[in-house]
Amino acid sequence: MSKLKRSLKRPKFTKALHQAPGTMTYVGNKETKETLLEVIDYNKDHYQRYTSTSPEDAFKFEEEQNTTWINIDGLNNTEEIEKLGKYYDLHPLIMEDIVNTGQRPKIDEYPEYLFIVAKMLYYNGDGSINNEHLSIVVGKDYVLTFQEAGGDVFDGLRERIKIGKGRIRSNGADYLMFALLDAVIDNYFAVVDDISDKIELFEDRIFHARTEDNLVLEIQELKRTILRIRRAVFPLREVVNRLLKVNHEIIEKKTESYIRDLHDHMIQISENIDLYREMIRSLLDMYMSTISNKMNEVMKVLTIMASIFIPLTFIAGIYGMNFEYMPELQWKYSYFVLWGIMLLLFIGMIFYFKRKKWL
Amino acid sequence: MSKLKRSLKRPKFTKALHQAPGTMTYVGNKETKETLLEVIDYNKDHYQRYTSTSPEDAFKFEEEQNTTWINIDGLNNTEEIEKLGKYYDLHPLIMEDIVNTGQRPKIDEYPEYLFIVAKMLYYNGDGSINNEHLSIVVGKDYVLTFQEAGGDVFDGLRERIKIGKGRIRSNGADYLMFALLDAVIDNYFAVVDDISDKIELFEDRIFHARTEDNLVLEIQELKRTILRIRRAVFPLREVVNRLLKVNHEIIEKKTESYIRDLHDHMIQISENIDLYREMIRSLLDMYMSTISNKMNEVMKVLTIMASIFIPLTFIAGIYGMNFEYMPELQWKYSYFVLWGIMLLLFIGMIFYFKRKKWL
Amino acid sequence: MSKLKRSLKRPKFTKALHQAPGTMTYVGNKETKETLLEVIDYNKDHYQRYTSTSPEDAFKFEEEQNTTWINIDGLNNTEEIEKLGKYYDLHPLIMEDIVNTGQRPKIDEYPEYLFIVAKMLYYNGDGSINNEHLSIVVGKDYVLTFQEAGGDVFDGLRERIKIGKGRIRSNGADYLMFALLDAVIDNYFAVVDDISDKIELFEDRIFHARTEDNLVLEIQELKRTILRIRRAVFPLREVVNRLLKVNHEIIEKKTESYIRDLHDHMIQISENIDLYREMIRSLLDMYMSTISNKMNEVMKVLTIMASIFIPLTFIAGIYGMNFEYMPELQWKYSYFVLWGIMLLLFIGMIFYFKRKKWL
Amino acid sequence: MSKLKRSLKRPKFTKALHQAPGTMTYVGNKETKETLLEVIDYNKDHYQRYTSTSPEDAFKFEEEQNTTWINIDGLNNTEEIEKLGKYYDLHPLIMEDIVNTGQRPKIDEYPEYLFIVAKMLYYNGDGSINNEHLSIVVGKDYVLTFQEAGGDVFDGLRERIKIGKGRIRSNGADYLMFALLDAVIDNYFAVVDDISDKIELFEDRIFHARTEDNLVLEIQELKRTILRIRRAVFPLREVVNRLLKVNHEIIEKKTESYIRDLHDHMIQISENIDLYREMIRSLLDMYMSTISNKMNEVMKVLTIMASIFIPLTFIAGIYGMNFEYMPELQWKYSYFVLWGIMLLLFIGMIFYFKRKKWL
Amino acid sequence: MSKLKRSLKRPKFTKALHQAPGTMTYVGNKETKETLLEVIDYNKDHYQRYTSTSPEDAFKFEEEQNTTWINIDGLNNTEEIEKLGKYYDLHPLIMEDIVNTGQRPKIDEYPEYLFIVAKMLYYNGDGSINNEHLSIVVGKDYVLTFQEAGGDVFDGLRERIKIGKGRIRSNGADYLMFALLDAVIDNYFAVVDDISDKIELFEDRIFHARTEDNLVLEIQELKRTILRIRRAVFPLREVVNRLLKVNHEIIEKKTESYIRDLHDHMIQISENIDLYREMIRSLLDMYMSTISNKMNEVMKVLTIMASIFIPLTFIAGIYGMNFEYMPELQWKYSYFVLWGIMLLLFIGMIFYFKRKKWL
Repeated sequence: MSKLKRSLKRPKFTKALHQAPGTMTYVGNKETKETLLEVIDYNKDHYQRYTSTSPEDAFKFEEEQNTTWINIDGLNNTEEIEKLGKYYDLHPLIMEDIVNTGQRPKIDEYPEYLFIVAKMLYYNGDGSINNEHLSIVVGKDYVLTFQEAGGDVFDGLRERIKIGKGRIRSNGADYLMFALLDAVIDNYFAVVDDISDKIELFEDRIFHARTEDNLVLEIQELKRTILRIRRAVFPLREVVNRLLKVNHEIIEKKTESYIRDLHDHMIQISENIDLYREMIRSLLDMYMSTISNKMNEVMKVLTIMASIFIPLTFIAGIYGMNFEYMPELQWKYSYFVLWGIMLLLFIGMIFYFKRKKWL
Repeated sequence: MSKLKRSLKRPKFTKALHQAPGTMTYVGNKETKETLLEVIDYNKDHYQRYTSTSPEDAFKFEEEQNTTWINIDGLNNTEEIEKLGKYYDLHPLIMEDIVNTGQRPKIDEYPEYLFIVAKMLYYNGDGSINNEHLSIVVGKDYVLTFQEAGGDVFDGLRERIKIGKGRIRSNGADYLMFALLDAVIDNYFAVVDDISDKIELFEDRIFHARTEDNLVLEIQELKRTILRIRRAVFPLREVVNRLLKVNHEIIEKKTESYIRDLHDHMIQISENIDLYREMIRSLLDMYMSTISNKMNEVMKVLTIMASIFIPLTFIAGIYGMNFEYMPELQWKYSYFVLWGIMLLLFIGMIFYFKRKKWL
Repeated sequence: MSKLKRSLKRPKFTKALHQAPGTMTYVGNKETKETLLEVIDYNKDHYQRYTSTSPEDAFKFEEEQNTTWINIDGLNNTEEIEKLGKYYDLHPLIMEDIVNTGQRPKIDEYPEYLFIVAKMLYYNGDGSINNEHLSIVVGKDYVLTFQEAGGDVFDGLRERIKIGKGRIRSNGADYLMFALLDAVIDNYFAVVDDISDKIELFEDRIFHARTEDNLVLEIQELKRTILRIRRAVFPLREVVNRLLKVNHEIIEKKTESYIRDLHDHMIQISENIDLYREMIRSLLDMYMSTISNKMNEVMKVLTIMASIFIPLTFIAGIYGMNFEYMPELQWKYSYFVLWGIMLLLFIGMIFYFKRKKWL
Repeated sequence: MSKLKRSLKRPKFTKALHQAPGTMTYVGNKETKETLLEVIDYNKDHYQRYTSTSPEDAFKFEEEQNTTWINIDGLNNTEEIEKLGKYYDLHPLIMEDIVNTGQRPKIDEYPEYLFIVAKMLYYNGDGSINNEHLSIVVGKDYVLTFQEAGGDVFDGLRERIKIGKGRIRSNGADYLMFALLDAVIDNYFAVVDDISDKIELFEDRIFHARTEDNLVLEIQELKRTILRIRRAVFPLREVVNRLLKVNHEIIEKKTESYIRDLHDHMIQISENIDLYREMIRSLLDMYMSTISNKMNEVMKVLTIMASIFIPLTFIAGIYGMNFEYMPELQWKYSYFVLWGIMLLLFIGMIFYFKRKKWL
Repeated sequence: MSKLKRSLKRPKFTKALHQAPGTMTYVGNKETKETLLEVIDYNKDHYQRYTSTSPEDAFKFEEEQNTTWINIDGLNNTEEIEKLGKYYDLHPLIMEDIVNTGQRPKIDEYPEYLFIVAKMLYYNGDGSINNEHLSIVVGKDYVLTFQEAGGDVFDGLRERIKIGKGRIRSNGADYLMFALLDAVIDNYFAVVDDISDKIELFEDRIFHARTEDNLVLEIQELKRTILRIRRAVFPLREVVNRLLKVNHEIIEKKTESYIRDLHDHMIQISENIDLYREMIRSLLDMYMSTISNKMNEVMKVLTIMASIFIPLTFIAGIYGMNFEYMPELQWKYSYFVLWGIMLLLFIGMIFYFKRKKWL
C-alpha cells in the first residue's frame, strides 16, 4: 500500500525452513551485488580510513593501541562474511544471526566479545522508513558492524571520529559501541516524531476530508507501522538494560554513565511509542463516531423532508380523487383554505423539529 | 467450518472422566490401525534405521556408544506403548501424558530422563493445519518420541542424520532433542507466516469483496486459529526457558548455546503471534467501520433521491387536485412556469447536497 | 433466567453482617433436613463403610493403621458440625469457613492438619450446573470432607476404594486428598467442555436464527457463567501450587508427583477458561457486526425501492396535473413515449445499483 | 445526579494548596458543630463508657490492665484534635492525615503505635452510600479512632464489648483493632451485594424499559460508584496484607490468624468488585446492542411499508395521468385487472420479506 | 486546538539529532532573553535574597552553616548554565538533561549530589496549563533549580522561607528539596481536580448540547491531556520511591518520614489520574450510545410518518385514476366511506406503534 509498509516488510522465514541449525541464510529483501568493507582505525592522535570489497584486507589493522571499527555492508554474500567470522572466531550461531534479518534485537555475552543485534530505523530520501538489521560485535579493541545494505545513521559519528570532535577519539571500543547505539536511538526519536505529526494530520483529515473511504485503511497502516517500530525498539531497551548490568571486562567504568543515559532515552522512546499507540487507537474511535455523527445528520435531513412532504402529498392526493360526490371540490374557497391548512402543517412540523433540536 | 478448524479440534476430556489418576486414555481424534516403530541408531561413524510394529524390537538397540532415536507413530494402542514405557521405566503419569493429547506443552525432570510435551503444527498437503501431540523422552543415550499419527516435521532431520550433514552425528542425545525441538519450532514460523499472509488477504477482501456476509465468521475463525496456535506455542517457550535453567546431567555444556538460540526463536514467534493477534483484532474494527461507511453511503443516496423528488411530487400532486376554483389551472403558461420552479428546486437541492459534501 | 444462573447464585453475605468474627453462619442456599455422615475406613486389606446422622458415631474409627474418610453432607445444622470440629480440635475460623459458602478456595496450614476449601462444579440430571462448597481437612490418618448437600463428584472414587482398584488403598490420607481434588478437577473439564459446545452453538445461532432478540442476553449469561466458573477454578490453582511448595509432614514424598500432575491440569483448565472467555467476547462482536450487516441489507432494499419508484411516481404525478395548457397531453404517442422513458430510467437505476454492488 | 454520587463526592484538594507540609486542613464535606468524644474502657471483668466534648476528659483513662477505646466524631475542629494528638505524641504527618479525607487507606508503623487509615462504606437510612474517612491509632493498651461525623459501622462491636459476648473482652488493643477493621470490611460486603442487585435490575430494565434515554447515564453512574468503592477497598487489602507481615510488638501472636481471616475477606471482596466491574462493562455492550437491534426493527418496518406501497402508488399514479390516448383507460375490466396485479405485487412482496425473515 | 494542547506541546527531538552525546541543546519552546538568577541564603536566624543575571554572582554564597537555594530561570542561554555547571562540578550528562526538556522525570545519584528531573504543571492566568521542565541538584548545603522560564509553583515556599514559618528554616538542603517537590506535587492535585471538573461538565454537555459535532474532538483532547499529565506524574512517583530507598548522606534521617508522605501523595494522584482516564474512556462510550439513541429516535419519527401516510397516499392515488369503469366513483357515499377507512387505518397504525412502544 504505502511506502512505509513495503519498507517494513517482514522477512520470509520459510526461506530458512528445514535447514540445519547454525546454517547461514539471508532472509532479508535487500540484495546487494557485493559486500563492502569500511575500516576506520583510530586513537587519540591517529586516524585512518580504508575501504575494500575483500574481507582479508581488514585483518591487518591489528595494533593494540588503536580502536578499529570494521563496517560491513551487504549480507547476501554469506561466504565473505563467514571468512571474517572465522578470523574473529565468532560462534556459528552469531554468524546465523548476522544474516537472519528476522532476529529481534538481543545481546549475547561471550568471553572475548559482546554480540548485539539492533534495528536501524531511518528515513530514506523519498520519505519512506528504512528498517535495517544491524549486528554489532564489540571486542577488546575492535568493533564489527554488519548491515544489510549501504546507507546508515552513522555519518555524524564518522565525521566526529574524523575531526576528533567530542570524546570519541580518547575512548576505546566500548565508547564506540555506545556511540553507535546512541546514533541508532537518536534516529528512533526522528521516526517517532514523524508518527506524532501523522497523528495530528489524521485528526484534521477526519474532520475535514471530503471522501473518507480509505481513512480506516490508512489508520490501520499507521497502527501497523507503530507496532513494527515497537518491535524494533522495545527489545533494544532490554539490551541496553542488560548492558547496564553485564559485568564484562570490555565495558569500562567511565562508559557506564553513558549507557545509563542511553537507557533513559530508550525509556523515553518507549513511553512515546505507547502514547502514540494509544492515540492511534483513539483515532479509530474518533473516525467511527464521526461517521455515526454524519449518518445521524443524513438521517435527520431525510426524516425532516419526508415528514413534512409525505402528509402534504397525501392531502393533495385526497383532492386528486375522482369521486363524483366530493362536496369540498365545489366550494369556492376550498383551494385557498387547503393551502392555509398545508401551510399550518408545514409550520407546525418546522416548529416540532426545532424543539427536538434537529434544525 | 473450514479445514483449519477441524484440524485444530480440541480433544474431548470427558472421555477420561471418572477414571483413576494415571490411567492411560487416548483422547485425541486420530485413530491409527497399528502402532509403528522407527528406530534410528547412530554415532559418528555408524548409522542404522529399522522399522517395526512390535515394541519389543526396539529393545535390542542398547549400545553405550550409540545414540538411539525411537519414534512411535499412533497412540490409540495403549498396551503397546505401555510395554515400551515399562521397559524404559517411565513413570505412570508420563504414560498418561503421552496419550493425553489435551496435555499442554511442559517439561518434567526425572533423575534418569527428561520428559517434554510439545505440539507439532504443520501444513498437510491440502493446506489444512495439522496440530499433533508430541512427547519426547530424553535419556542418557536414547530419545523416545511419541506421535499421534504418521507424518511429521522431522524428515529434514532424518536426512541430516542419514547423510551425516551438520553437527548431528557427532553429538549425543541432548543435541538430538535440540534438533527435534528446532524442527518443531521452525514449522511454527511457517504457520505464523501463513497467518500473516491471510491477514493481508483479508484487508483486500474487506475493501473489494462483493458480498461480505461471512467475513466476520472468517475473521473469527482466523482469530480462533491464532488463539489455538498461541496455546501450542507459548507454553513451549517456558519449556525452552526451563531447559536453559535445568541442571540435568543429560544436557551437556556445549548444547546450551543451541538451546539459547531456540529460546530466541520462541520469543520471536511469540512476538509475531501477539502482533498478528492485534492485527486480527484490527481487522474486525476495519470491517465494522467499512460496513458503517457503506451504510452511510446507502443512506446518502436514499436521502438525496427522497429529498429531491418528494417535494416535487407534492407540487405535482397539488395541481392534480380537482377543485373547481383553482386559478393557476387556467393560466396559459403556468405549466411551463411550474417546470421552471421545479427545475430551480432541483438545482437548489443539488447545490445544497454538494455543499454538504454528500455528492 | 436460565438454570445455569440460578444454580450459580451468589451467597448473600448480608446474612452474616454484624456478627462476631468466628461465628458459624451458613450463608448458602441449600437447606437440608439433617446432617448426613458417611465414614469410609480402609487400608490395604481392610474396607468398611458406615453411615449415620449423629457425629458421635464417627469418633470410634480410630485405628492408626487405617485411613478414615469422614464425609459430611449438609451445612445448615451448625451445632452438629461444631461437635465434630471440637472433637478434631479445628480452629474456630475453620469452623466459620466450612459453613461460609462465599469463602473462595484456599489452603490453610495448621500444625496437625491442612485445611482446603474448593468448589465442586458438576452437572445435575436436568443439565444445570451445581456449584457446591467443599471443605477438606487432611490429618495424619483421616480426611474430613464437608459438603452443602448430598450428591457429589466422588462416586467413582468411592467405588475405587471399595473394590481396591488403582493405588488408592495402598496409600494414606494425603493420597486420598489428592484423589478428592483430582475428582473435583476432572469435573471442571466436563463443565468447561460444555461451555465450548455452547460457544459453537451460538456461532450457528447468530448466523441462522430467525429472531435474535434475546441472543445478547444469552451471550451475557454465558459470559457470566464463565466468570463464575473462573472464580471457582483460579483460586484452586493457587491452592494446588501452594500444596506443591508446602513442607508439611502429612504430605509424603511419593504423593508429590501426583500433585504436580494436578497442577498441570489446573493450568490446562485455566487456559481453556481464558480461551473460551475471549471467544465469548468475540461472540458479541460477531453478533454486533451481524446486526450491522443485516441493517445494511435492509437499508439497501429500502434505498433501491425508493430510489427507483419515487422519481417515476413524480413523473406520473406531473401528467396527472390538471393544467389546461399541457401540450404533451394531446400528443398521440406521448403515453407510450413516457413508458419508454420510465423504462429507461428503471434500467439505468438497476445498472447504477449493480455497479455499486448493491444488487 | 443520584444520591450515590453526592455521597461519594471527592474532597477538594485545592483547599490545602500552597500550605506548609504537616499543616492540618480538613478537606472533607461534613461539617460538625463540635467534636464528640466517646471513651470505652474495658478488661475481662470491667466495662465503662463515657462521652464528652472536650479531649482532656479522655486522658484520665490510663490503667495498664484495661484496654481503652477513644472514638472521636467530627474532624473540622482541628485544634481539639491537635490537643489529643499532642497528648498521645502523634507525629505531625499523622495529624495531617487524620483530617485529610482525601488520604487513601494506608498503614504507617511507628515505634509506639500503628497508624491505619481506612474508609467506611455503609448505607444511610435513605439508601445512599456513606463514604467516611476513618483513622485508627493502635497503641499498647489503647485504640484511637477518628471519624468525620457521627454514625458508623461499630454499633454491633460496641454491643459485644458491653455485654461481653465473643472474644473481645478477653483480648487486648490489637484484637480491638482487628474487630474494628472486621466491622468495616463486613459493610463492604453489604455495599458490594447491593451493586450486584443493581446490575441484575439494569439487565431487566435494558430489555423492558419504555424510554431508555438516561440508561447510559445511570450505567456510567454505577460504573463510577464501583470505581470509587474499588478505590476505598483495594488499598485496604494491602494494609491488611502489611499487617500480616509487620513485626510489631503491639500485635500478639494469637491475633494473627484473625488478621489472616481479614485478608481472606479482602481478597473475596476485591474479586467481587472486579467481577461486578466487568459485568457493568457488559451492561453497556448489552445496551448498545439492544439499541442496534431496535433500530434494526424500526428500519425493517419502514422498509416493508415503503417497499410495498411505493411501487403500488406509482402504478396508481400512472393511471391518474391525463393523457388523451391511454388505451387501458377505456377497457372495461382494466380497473379490476389492475387491482389483481397490485394484489399479486403485494403478496409477492410479503412472500419476499418472509423469505428474508423480516416478517 | 485548545490552549491546553498548545501548552503541553511535545519538544522537537529532531533539533538534537546527529549531535555528539553530552552536547547541550535546548529543545523546548520557551525562549527567554536572558538567564535570571535568584539566590536565597538562609539558616535558622539568617535570611538573604539576591537576584542577578550573571552566574558568577552566585558563587560567593558559600558558608557552611547556611542553606543556599539558587534558582535559574531560562534555559536557552546554554553558556551561562555551563559556567554554573562547571563551578558546581556537574557531570556533562546532567548538563545535557537540564536543557533537554524532553527528558522524563528521573533521579541520578552522584557521590556529591543528587540530580532530580521533574515537571511542573500549573495554571497560567488565562486558564491554560503550563508544563515546565524542572531540574534540581541537591548538594550538602545547597540546592540548584533550573527552570525554562519565569513563573513557578514556589512562591508559597519563598514566602515561608522569608517569614520563617513552618519547619523550613530549621532544616537543611534535603528538607528544601522535599519542600520543592511537595510544591510541585501539590499543583498536580489542582490540575487533576480540574480534569475531574471537566469530565462532569462533559457529561452534562453530552446530554444537553444542541450541536455535538466537535465533542469527540474535545473528548480526545481531554484524553490526550490526561495522557500527557500521566507522563509527567508517573515517572516522578518512581523518583520519590527511589528517594525513599536511596542511602545518600545528603538525606537526613528525620526528612525520611516527609518523603514517605510525598510518596503517599504521588500514589493518590496516580490513582486519581487512572480513575479519570477510565472515566474519559467512558465519556466516549456515553457519547456514542447517545448518538445511537438519537439516531434511533430520528428513525422512529421517519418510520411512523412514512408508515402512516404512504399507504393512505396509495389509497388516494387509486381513486385518482382515470379509468372509465370504476364503480366506486359513482357511489354517493364512497368518499365518506373512504375517509372512514383511512381514519381506521390511521388509528390502527397509531395503536400498533404504541404497542411497540415507539410512541
